[in-house]
Amino acid sequence: MKYHLRIEVCLKPGHSDPEGETTAHLLKELGYKVEKVNVSKVYTVVLNAESREEAKVKAEEMCKRLLANPTKDHYVITVDEK
Amino acid sequence: MKYHLRIEVCLKPGHSDPEGETTAHLLKELGYKVEKVNVSKVYTVVLNAESREEAKVKAEEMCKRLLANPTKDHYVITVDEK
Repeated sequence: MKYHLRIEVCLKPGHSDPEGETTAHLLKELGYKVEKVNVSKVYTVVLNAESREEAKVKAEEMCKRLLANPTKDHYVITVDEK
Repeated sequence: MKYHLRIEVCLKPGHSDPEGETTAHLLKELGYKVEKVNVSKVYTVVLNAESREEAKVKAEEMCKRLLANPTKDHYVITVDEK
């Protein structure tokens, strides 16, 4: 069965976010009253799995092995049936 | 007043997503039955604005001027009061 995984990876609080800082700087230069910008990434993965539970377990593994850096990243996984 | 903007920028259908393709390739090499991966970006912006409506209008402008490429990107804006 096909599952749609939505995996959002963002920095844990306290870690520097250079892309967010640059974006905040550019938005301020354009005249916007911006205090802070954080940038995170969303992976939408179409995965074949036997069950929703298996899909969730695989998504956790993918985060630990490839998509997130456990030292500095936090991730949120959502699983939907196609 | 402070508003939290959540701006998700993703590619319009039909546009190539090299980062998604590379991620799919790497996940397959790790043994996952992945069909497709798409990558999108989420900007979380803390903005000072007079009203929710102004915050929404500013967020639209930011997308058009800096955060999204109107030719190939689609974006979704959510506004929350801090």
